[in-house]
Amino acid sequence: MNINSGDQVLIISPDDKTFLLTVTEGKKMGTHLGEISLGDAIGKPYGDRIYSNLEHPFLLLEPTLEDKMMKVKRHTQIIYPKDAAFIILKTGIQSGMRVIECGTGSGSLTIALANAVAPNGTVFTYDSREKHLENARMNIENAGYSNNVESKLRVAQNGFDEEGVDVVILDLPSPWDGIPAAAKALRGGGRIASLSPTYNQVEKCVENLEEHGFVYIETMELLLRHIRVSAGKTRPVDRMVSHTGFLTFGRKILSKKEETIDESSDPFRAPSNS
Amino acid sequence: MNINSGDQVLIISPDDKTFLLTVTEGKKMGTHLGEISLGDAIGKPYGDRIYSNLEHPFLLLEPTLEDKMMKVKRHTQIIYPKDAAFIILKTGIQSGMRVIECGTGSGSLTIALANAVAPNGTVFTYDSREKHLENARMNIENAGYSNNVESKLRVAQNGFDEEGVDVVILDLPSPWDGIPAAAKALRGGGRIASLSPTYNQVEKCVENLEEHGFVYIETMELLLRHIRVSAGKTRPVDRMVSHTGFLTFGRKILSKKEETIDESSDPFRAPSNS
Amino acid sequence: MNINSGDQVLIISPDDKTFLLTVTEGKKMGTHLGEISLGDAIGKPYGDRIYSNLEHPFLLLEPTLEDKMMKVKRHTQIIYPKDAAFIILKTGIQSGMRVIECGTGSGSLTIALANAVAPNGTVFTYDSREKHLENARMNIENAGYSNNVESKLRVAQNGFDEEGVDVVILDLPSPWDGIPAAAKALRGGGRIASLSPTYNQVEKCVENLEEHGFVYIETMELLLRHIRVSAGKTRPVDRMVSHTGFLTFGRKILSKKEETIDESSDPFRAPSNS
Amino acid sequence: MNINSGDQVLIISPDDKTFLLTVTEGKKMGTHLGEISLGDAIGKPYGDRIYSNLEHPFLLLEPTLEDKMMKVKRHTQIIYPKDAAFIILKTGIQSGMRVIECGTGSGSLTIALANAVAPNGTVFTYDSREKHLENARMNIENAGYSNNVESKLRVAQNGFDEEGVDVVILDLPSPWDGIPAAAKALRGGGRIASLSPTYNQVEKCVENLEEHGFVYIETMELLLRHIRVSAGKTRPVDRMVSHTGFLTFGRKILSKKEETIDESSDPFRAPSNS
Repeated sequence: MNINSGDQVLIISPDDKTFLLTVTEGKKMGTHLGEISLGDAIGKPYGDRIYSNLEHPFLLLEPTLEDKMMKVKRHTQIIYPKDAAFIILKTGIQSGMRVIECGTGSGSLTIALANAVAPNGTVFTYDSREKHLENARMNIENAGYSNNVESKLRVAQNGFDEEGVDVVILDLPSPWDGIPAAAKALRGGGRIASLSPTYNQVEKCVENLEEHGFVYIETMELLLRHIRVSAGKTRPVDRMVSHTGFLTFGRKILSKKEETIDESSDPFRAPSNS
Repeated sequence: MNINSGDQVLIISPDDKTFLLTVTEGKKMGTHLGEISLGDAIGKPYGDRIYSNLEHPFLLLEPTLEDKMMKVKRHTQIIYPKDAAFIILKTGIQSGMRVIECGTGSGSLTIALANAVAPNGTVFTYDSREKHLENARMNIENAGYSNNVESKLRVAQNGFDEEGVDVVILDLPSPWDGIPAAAKALRGGGRIASLSPTYNQVEKCVENLEEHGFVYIETMELLLRHIRVSAGKTRPVDRMVSHTGFLTFGRKILSKKEETIDESSDPFRAPSNS
Repeated sequence: MNINSGDQVLIISPDDKTFLLTVTEGKKMGTHLGEISLGDAIGKPYGDRIYSNLEHPFLLLEPTLEDKMMKVKRHTQIIYPKDAAFIILKTGIQSGMRVIECGTGSGSLTIALANAVAPNGTVFTYDSREKHLENARMNIENAGYSNNVESKLRVAQNGFDEEGVDVVILDLPSPWDGIPAAAKALRGGGRIASLSPTYNQVEKCVENLEEHGFVYIETMELLLRHIRVSAGKTRPVDRMVSHTGFLTFGRKILSKKEETIDESSDPFRAPSNS
Repeated sequence: MNINSGDQVLIISPDDKTFLLTVTEGKKMGTHLGEISLGDAIGKPYGDRIYSNLEHPFLLLEPTLEDKMMKVKRHTQIIYPKDAAFIILKTGIQSGMRVIECGTGSGSLTIALANAVAPNGTVFTYDSREKHLENARMNIENAGYSNNVESKLRVAQNGFDEEGVDVVILDLPSPWDGIPAAAKALRGGGRIASLSPTYNQVEKCVENLEEHGFVYIETMELLLRHIRVSAGKTRPVDRMVSHTGFLTFGRKILSKKEETIDESSDPFRAPSNS
C-alpha cells in the first residue's frame, strides 16, 4: 500500500512530534529539524521515511481513526476515541447504516461515525452554529469522509429531515431538546446515544427518554488508564483523564397504546434502569 | 426494516429475560411465560411484539454488535465489548481491511472484527484448538458473519498464511509466540494489538514488540462503570468489573538498518513508552 | 502482649473462616471443625494457636481497627474502612479531640472515630432510631470503646448539646438537616465531613455548607482495587466495589459580617469548589 | 481554642494561596498582598483573620494532618494522605503503639504515624541517607511531633534495634531488604505494610513476606477522584492522579514448626492471596 497524492499521512519527527498532513506534490513544510517536501512521500510505502533538508528522518505512518479524531482542528471539546468507539459498538452502527448526529462540534465523532458506516452509509450531522459546521466540514474533508457525511445547520428542536434512521447520537448541552426529534426519526428497534459531562444532564436526559418510550436505558462512563511498561519497573502512569462524559443509551420500540387499557401495566413502558 | 426468516432477533420477555434467536418459520420455543412461535416475527418491524400462547408480550429488537458478542456460546473467557471497540478504533480497522486474529476463543472478538471489515473485508482467525474453532464458527455463523471470516487451525509459532495485512490482533496466553509471525504478516504502517490479563504478560509482550521493531507501543486498560440514574437518586452502581485485560498497541515500520551505522542511534528503534 | 480475659480476639480456622470473639473463661464455641474453648486463649501471645476438640488449629490474631469495623452486627449499610480512614485524616481527628457524629447507624464509623480520639477524647454520636443506637452501643462496647463514646437519641434538626467541638461528621440521608446544628457546635477552624451515596445529596449538601459559611469545601470519592499477586501472574482482581459514597469536607470560619459592607466581596464567603 | 506562639497555623490569602507557618512574635512575612505580622495571630481563635499592611484579610486555620503532610519540605516523593490513612487503619495503629518505619524520606508518613500513636506512643524511623533524615527531622519538628519520633541512620539490611513492636511500615525501593528485620522486630500478631509503585516490587515483596511466614497478605491500590460540585453542573473533575503506589499488608504469626511434621501441611504457612 503506497502513498498517493492527496492521502492524509501521519508524519513523525525523530523527537516524536506528530503531524497529520495531506501529501501534495510540491508542498513543503518547515519544521524545527529542517524543511520537508511532502511530495517525497508519494509512492513510498507506509512505515518508510522521508528526510528533511538537514538529513533528519521523518517517519511516514498511516493515520488510524484515533489519529484522525485527535488531530481535528478544534473549536469545541472533542469526543474522546474511547467514548466514540464504545458508542459505535453499543448502538450497533455498521457499514451501510443511516445515522443522525446532533451536535457536530469539531466533527471528531462525525469522522468516527462516517468511518463506521463507510463505504455506503451516511451520517446526517446537525449543528446550530455555522462557524462550527464550517470547521467540522473541513476536518471531515481532510479525513476523507466527505462522501459519507451530510451536514445541516439547524437547532435540534426544529427536527430532523430523515426518517427510519438506524441510530441517533446526541451531543448537546440539553440532550432533551433532541429527544422528540430522535424518537420520530428512528425506526423501530433503532438506538439512541447521548453524551453529557454532568450528572444533572444525565438525570434529565434519562427522564426524557423514558417519557418518549425508549427502553433498555443505560448510563455508564469509561475510564482509560495508561500503563508505563518497562522491564522490572511496570506501573500505571502518574496522571490520567478522570472524566470525559457520561454515555446514555436507549432503544426505540413501537408503541402500541391501544393494546393496554392501563398504560402503566405495559412492562415495556417502565424499563428498569437499576 | 422488517424481520425476515433467518434473521437473528433479540427477544425480550416482559420480565426482562433476553433471548438471541434465529427466526425460523415453524420453530417454537418454550419459555417460563408460555410458548412463542418464532415464525410470528416474520414480516414484523423491529420494536414490535409477538405474544406467547399465554398472551404475554415479547419484544422484538434488532441485536446490536454488543448483543451478538455477549450472547455467543462460550468455551473461553470472552473479550468485552469495551475492549473490542477500543481495539478496533485504535488500530484503525475499517470496512474492506484484511485482519488477522490469533486466538479465536469463543469468537466474540472475531464477530466484532468481522463487523468492522464488512461487507468486503476478511478476518483470518487462528486457533490451536479444534473444539474452540468449531464453537466459534457456529457463533460467527449465527451472528451472520461467515462471509467475512476464514478460520484456521494452527499454533501461532507456525506463522500465518497472509501477507501485507492491515492489522494483527493477538489474544494468546503467550502473545510473544505470535509476534514474529505478526511482524512478517503486517504491511508497513500496519498495527498490532495484544490483550493480556497480567502485568507479566504485558511486560514480556512489550519487550518482544520492541525487539521486532514495532514503534509507538502503548499499554492501557479501560474501566467501565455503570451509573444508576433515577430522579433525585443518581449514583454509580455498587459493584463493577475491576479488570478484563490490558491492551497493548504498536505499529510496524520498515526497518532500514543499512541507513544507520550505530543501530541504537536510529530514533525509531527505541520508542519511548513513558 | 498476651491475651487477657475480656479481650476481643480474631480467631481464624484452618480454612480461613474468621470469628471476632471476646475471650471468656469457660466459654465454648461450636465450629464446623469441632468445639473450641475460648479460655484456652488466655495467657497466649497473639499469633499463637488454640486447638479444637478435633485437634484442628485455630489462629489467634489481634483485631485491627478494620476487623472491628467490618465485624459489627449490622442494621444498616456500614461505612467502609477506606472512607473512615480518609475522613479521619482529612478532618484532622486525633487523640484527645471532641467529635460529633450524626447518624450512628451500626456504629462502625463510631468505632473508628473513638479509636482516633482515644484514650482521652470523646465521640458524641446521635441517631434518631433507638433500635440502631442499641445495636451500635453493643458493637462499640464489644470493640472496647465505651469510654470514648456518648450516644444520644435525637434527630439532627433538634441540635447538638455540645459546643466548641473539633469535628462534626454527618452520615444522614438529608445531611442538610444537620448542617445548621453542626455550624453551631463547631469551634472556629473546626471541620465538617458528610458522606452520601448520591450526586443529588452531594449537590444539596454543598449548597447548604456554603450558605452556612463553611469554606474550602471539597467533594471526592475513593475507589479501592485489590491486586491478585502471584509470581508471574499478577493482575487486578476481577470485580470490585464500584461505589460506597461521596465524601464532602468543609471548614468553619468565624463570620465577621461587620467588616465588609458588601458581603459578596468577602472572599471567604464565596469559596471556589472547582 | 486560641492560637499560641509556636503553633503551626495555616494562613490563607484572599486569593487562596496557603502558607503553613509557625506563629512567632515579631516575625513578619512578605506576601504578594502586602506584609503580615505573624504575631498578630497570637490570642486569636482559629477561623479568624489577620490583615496585611495593605489591609488584605488573611484567614487563620488550624492545620489538619493532611495540611501538615502535604506541606513538608520535600526531598523525595511523599506518601499521599489517602494511602497513609488507609495504612494506619488497616494495620490498626493507635494511640500508645510502638511502630517502626523504614524509609523516612521527607517524613510525611512519619508525621501521620506519629499523630496516630500520640500522645504516648513512638515511631522509630530509619533511613540510610543522612540528608533525608535531617530534612525529615525538621519537618517532624515543625509539625509538632518530635516527642513521638526517634530517627536513626541505618540501612534496612542491618536490622532494627526494637523488639516486640506493633507494626512495621516499609517504604523502600527494595522492600524485601527490610522484611527479615521486620519479621524479627514484630510481636506475634503484629502487622506489616509496604508501599511500592511498581508491580514488580509488589510481586517480589509478597513472595518474601510468604517466605518469612507472614499471613493474610493482601495488595491493593486506592484511587482518589474529586467531584466538582456546582448546582446543576455537578461532575467528576477532568484530571486525577492515576497512581501513587500499591499497598501490601501482612500479619505475623508465631511459627510452631515442631507441631507439624510436614511443614507444607500447616495451613497458616501457605496463605491464599487470591
